[in-house]
Amino acid sequence: MLMLHHAPRSRSTGILWLLEELAVPFDVHHVDIRGNVAEEYRRIHPHKKVPALQDGDTIVTERAAICLYLCEKFPKAGLAPPIGDAQRAAFLSGLVYCDAVVDPCIAVRAQGWDADPSGLSFGRFEDMALHLERRLERGPYALGDTFTALDTQLGCAVLWGLQLFNLLPDKPAFRDYLARVTARPTFQRAMARDQQLAN
Amino acid sequence: MLMLHHAPRSRSTGILWLLEELAVPFDVHHVDIRGNVAEEYRRIHPHKKVPALQDGDTIVTERAAICLYLCEKFPKAGLAPPIGDAQRAAFLSGLVYCDAVVDPCIAVRAQGWDADPSGLSFGRFEDMALHLERRLERGPYALGDTFTALDTQLGCAVLWGLQLFNLLPDKPAFRDYLARVTARPTFQRAMARDQQLAN
Repeated sequence: MLMLHHAPRSRSTGILWLLEELAVPFDVHHVDIRGNVAEEYRRIHPHKKVPALQDGDTIVTERAAICLYLCEKFPKAGLAPPIGDAQRAAFLSGLVYCDAVVDPCIAVRAQGWDADPSGLSFGRFEDMALHLERRLERGPYALGDTFTALDTQLGCAVLWGLQLFNLLPDKPAFRDYLARVTARPTFQRAMARDQQLAN
Repeated sequence: MLMLHHAPRSRSTGILWLLEELAVPFDVHHVDIRGNVAEEYRRIHPHKKVPALQDGDTIVTERAAICLYLCEKFPKAGLAPPIGDAQRAAFLSGLVYCDAVVDPCIAVRAQGWDADPSGLSFGRFEDMALHLERRLERGPYALGDTFTALDTQLGCAVLWGLQLFNLLPDKPAFRDYLARVTARPTFQRAMARDQQLAN
């Protein structure tokens, strides 16, 4: 049985959503990242963060890696362009971009830090916001006509960026995209489970 | 022909190294990231950064994505554990960790910023440095006995973290690992090409 180490309303919510999309059985271990996390959890996650996915003896961390691992394990779900597909490069780049650019840009902006972006691996917040807007206004999904695992990650990034951090600009491209993806029953189920854990 | 958009002594040096490991022909386009980058380069990279890989009409950005794309395109090079392999999860997690954790931790530390790491997607610099040390002291390579694409990325991260940023602690695990991986002729060739561009 797959086990997701998870905290509600966190960076791992998109993985909860992806597991609902895959329609596979899984357990959730609630990690209280806003409280004290036991030191022994470090053998699961080196920074005592979420998400982490456990599959028997195998542990996967970092969201893009978990998405790729799950799409490789359950290829019939069709949530990833297969190797050699024309969309494969955009899929891989987009997944890593969520983790390596979107999240650090939002985290650093939320701290109120400002710097010459040439010194930052992740670059400038405004470039990130504009890139996401341009990509999503083409729609309906991140890669075009087909919903993929990338939409669970971008969807949550845009959702938290707008609603939790209040940092992304309130653009029609973001609102329309969110309306489309959050209407999915899989998202509703993930949010219900998230909410249940938060209570 | 593959084209690498590259700047010397930057985050893209590890991709130059990987291309040498793959022993495939490629061209290099020198992007002057420390000077003025033409606005039209934004159609290649949304932040006008490096690396970006061009393969005909296909563009791949973000290093972990470029590594995965190249390993998928050239599977016979054996630089990635195949899908279903016991090392696959560690390979995927490690590649994304370089981009999403190691680099932001180093960038933020280089700026002299300090914050409650619970608010940062990438977490605490000290956790990152300790995790890398623990992983690399097992050796000889990031995944154990076999050199993979992950070593081109971790190798450059440790190299720049120690020598360019002077931020990683000078530990035997780091020095021994660097001595092993930088002795490879592929690394020497990549650095020679890097140096040539810098002149």
